[in-house]
Formats: sequence, C-alpha cells, structure tokens
Amino acid sequence: MPPVASTATAPQRFAIIAGNGRLPLVLAERAAVAPDRAVHIIGIAGEADPEIARYPHSWIKWGELGRLFRVLEAENMTDLVIVGGVTRPDLANVRLDFGAITNLPFILGLMQQGGDDGVLGSLVRFFEGRGYRVRGVHEVAPDLIARSGGLTRLLPDDQDLSDIAKARAVLASLGPHDVGQCVAVDRNRVLAIEAAEGTDRMLNRVVEISHWGTRGRGRRRGVAVKSAKPDQELRVDMPAIGPRTVELVAEAGLKGLAIEAGRVLVIDEERVRALADAADVFVFGF
Amino acid sequence: MPPVASTATAPQRFAIIAGNGRLPLVLAERAAVAPDRAVHIIGIAGEADPEIARYPHSWIKWGELGRLFRVLEAENMTDLVIVGGVTRPDLANVRLDFGAITNLPFILGLMQQGGDDGVLGSLVRFFEGRGYRVRGVHEVAPDLIARSGGLTRLLPDDQDLSDIAKARAVLASLGPHDVGQCVAVDRNRVLAIEAAEGTDRMLNRVVEISHWGTRGRGRRRGVAVKSAKPDQELRVDMPAIGPRTVELVAEAGLKGLAIEAGRVLVIDEERVRALADAADVFVFGF
Repeated sequence: MPPVASTATAPQRFAIIAGNGRLPLVLAERAAVAPDRAVHIIGIAGEADPEIARYPHSWIKWGELGRLFRVLEAENMTDLVIVGGVTRPDLANVRLDFGAITNLPFILGLMQQGGDDGVLGSLVRFFEGRGYRVRGVHEVAPDLIARSGGLTRLLPDDQDLSDIAKARAVLASLGPHDVGQCVAVDRNRVLAIEAAEGTDRMLNRVVEISHWGTRGRGRRRGVAVKSAKPDQELRVDMPAIGPRTVELVAEAGLKGLAIEAGRVLVIDEERVRALADAADVFVFGF
Repeated sequence: MPPVASTATAPQRFAIIAGNGRLPLVLAERAAVAPDRAVHIIGIAGEADPEIARYPHSWIKWGELGRLFRVLEAENMTDLVIVGGVTRPDLANVRLDFGAITNLPFILGLMQQGGDDGVLGSLVRFFEGRGYRVRGVHEVAPDLIARSGGLTRLLPDDQDLSDIAKARAVLASLGPHDVGQCVAVDRNRVLAIEAAEGTDRMLNRVVEISHWGTRGRGRRRGVAVKSAKPDQELRVDMPAIGPRTVELVAEAGLKGLAIEAGRVLVIDEERVRALADAADVFVFGF
C-alpha cells in the first residue's frame, strides 16, 4: 500500500468529533500550542475522555445529530476530524433529536451495514454531502504517522523478519474480507488474529497461548504486526498504536511490534520508544 | 474439500494415544461395546481424562517415548489412533527416557516447527516409519463425522446462509497460512477468527464484542462456522464440535453453528441436538 497523501494543506480551524481514547486530546493539545490553529472538540458523552473539557468543547449524546450540526454552525467549522473509538450503543437507549430524525433513513442504513469500512465510508459521504470536509489525522498531524525503520534500540532479527512477512501475508489474505488489523506470529505459527475485538484484547490473549518449551521462562518469542486494511477509510479510522500497545506487546511475551509505515499512527512516540526500550521489545516500521 | 475417504477397513485392535477432552473416552466406549474390537488407551499424564482408567489403559509421561513403544509392543498393537488436544509442555520439566533420547533429533525438529499441520504430519510419518499405522477417528468411528444438512429443529435463514458463505470465504483465505478453523460473522461483519487459542476461547470472546442496537436484549445474531484447514492432517487432528461447543455458541448470542460435512467430528450428537434445540440455535452441515 502507498502511504496516504499528505500534500493537502492542513485546515487552520477544525472540529474534532471525539470518541474514546487519547487521540482526541493529543490533537487538541497540538492545536492549542499552534498560534495559527483553532479547534473545537465535540465529545460524544460516555465515549470521550472528560479531559477534553480543558479545551474549547461541547458535549453531544448519541442520537443528537441536530445538535451536532448546530454546534458546527455556531463555531463556524467546516472541517471535521473524527477520531477515537466508539462502542456500539444499544439503540433502545438512544434518543434521536430532530436532526437525527430527519436523517433517519441514513442512520438506519448505517446500523444495518456489517463491515466497518462500509459504515465509516458512509459516514464520510454523509458529512461531505452536507458541505463539510472530513480530514484525516494524517492531514492535521502528519508527524503522528509511522515511519519506516526502527523506532527502538532493538531491531527485528532474521527470524522476526520472517514472522513479520508471514503476518503480513495473513493480513493481505484477510484484506478483501474487511477484517484483520493485527496478527501475532511465532516462528511461522499464527498465534492470534484480530477481528472485531480490537488490538488490545487480541494482545491480551497471546500470553495465554501455549508454546512448546518456554512457558514460565520469560524468554520473548514472536511478533505482532499491525497494518491498515487495503480499503480502510483512513480519514476516520486510521489504525493507531500507543504506549498501551507496547505495554501489551511486552506483557504478551512477544519480541516486538511491526507497523505499516505511512498508514498507522503512533500516539506519543517518545513514550512508546521509552517503554519499548525499557521492556526490551522492538517497534519497527515496514 | 472432498470428505475424507472412509473406505479403509477399520482395524479390530488399536491403541488410543489420548490427549485431553472427551473424544478418547467416546472411542474407548464404542470399542468396549463392540465384541470384535479391542482397544488399549495410552493416556498422556496431565492431559488425558482420569476416567480412561475404566478401560484397558496405561499412562505415559511427556518424554517417555521408549515406554510408549514398549506398551505398544506388549499389547501387540500396530494401529494407532492419536486423539485429544495437548498443551505444549515446558521442555525444562520433561524428562526424556531412553527411547526419547535415541529419537532426539526428530523430537527437536518437531518442537522447532511452527505450524500445527507440519508438526502433526511429522508425527504421523514418525510412527509410520517405525511400522505403525496411524488411523483417523473417521476410520474407527465413521458415524462421528458431520453430515450435510440440519441437525436441529432450527435451520439457517437467508441472512445466516450469507454469513456462513462469508465465514467460509475467510476460512478459505486463511487456509494457505495453516490457520483458521472457526470464524464468527454477523451480517457480513467478521466478529472473531480462531488462531491458536482454540474454538472455545474464540466463542467465549464473541459475547464481549459490541453490536449496534442489540446489547443486553438477548436477540441472537450471527453465526459461527467451523471447518478443517485445506491441508489439515485429519488422521491426527480432525476438528470436532460437541455439547460444550453448542453451549458456547448459545452463550455467545449467536444464532447457530455451521460445520463442514465430512471433515468435522460431532461428539455426542444426541446431546448436541438436545442442547441446541433447547437453546434455539441451529447446527448445520454444509
């Protein structure tokens, strides 16, 4: 896959529609220290980190699509960055406001789609159809994108490179099915494949998978590989790693983490590097 | 995949090398009630169910390959059925007997192989090279093999059949990588893919995966599909489902379980059917 284009001019003003995780805060922080930037965070209640309140912000609830558009208009924002994961709420507990009700056919269509790529692609087209520009994290913070080569003191050895190649082959096979962002491989044996559970849970279970001959002896084995799906909508769903990912790779007993340069975000690179070096694991962009 | 050949004559006498799970007992029970059959179970200590002691049996420990061959000779058994899962023991705690030490190059070679298919294929060739015949469960108990069509009161509907097709496509893509026996799909979205953790653990996590709109409301959604890998060594590693699998499918909130006819074993079909009918889930052979 080619890296995403980063030639587009980054917007001076943009709204961050914030799901869970640290990424909305990281973006807000960067914009706050840039004199020529203005952001407004719109946090989804129950999803976004309460710390967003340190920056200019509004809260919306699931179903308040009308309120979302009113905030965007009041703040005079035409560029959106949609970041952070969301749970899939029980629709029975969601109250739709007028703006949501007028868009009900679209919303119901979204809910009925199965694959993530389809849902997120529809979301982008929905906002674009209303005159907004949906910008990727890579456009507003291109320095967060993973680069090729080693990020850490340790680098993959030949066995690791062979396992990385195997994991990439598995990911390539899964791409057409809109699944597979992370795979763990140990000496040609596929230990775990991420589907809908997310990378953290996938890494969590690797530690429970038995190996011949090394149990309880703490010798690291195997690698995790994370990449974007071939058709992934990178503007709203760019895969990311961060300090927690490195902690989980270390806890799983893996030797390191390889990530697709140009198509995966590294959140808090300094801490990623420090944690990885302290745990003797590698982080490597391919 | 064509079903496995079941034309070979089943052996009258065979040894069961027993790992964990119920299957060794099921086979022993069947042989015990057949007047023309004689079995001897060789249980791997720490793996095999202690109940094997109800039948003619011996225990061996990991590493006692010499003792294994002595038991086979003493019992005059030349046909072997190798069944049940095994953990991968810590080699530091395994004491090798003389028979194991003389086969050390073979054993070390096995340990260094990554993929399951390679390991199990080597194991079959190892026994065959010493004059033993390795027989599949399908040869000694062909009635355990899944048949086409519905096993239960409920059958898959059109949406389920479409999800089954998607899961089969995912499994087919994974086959060349020697991974993937079970996949769960809900309305075209891949929820979970089994790698080295086993089917039970994969089903366990499906319940935690969030859906739009149905959380906590108990409406069943999605299917699990289990099949053999294209190159799976069916003589020693035929995929199996049983009552516990059906319980986990029900607990996961899935609508049913589809299995590959001819290449998956159904252990205790009566109970599988009864549990599935009671839980309103389908079991279907394709």
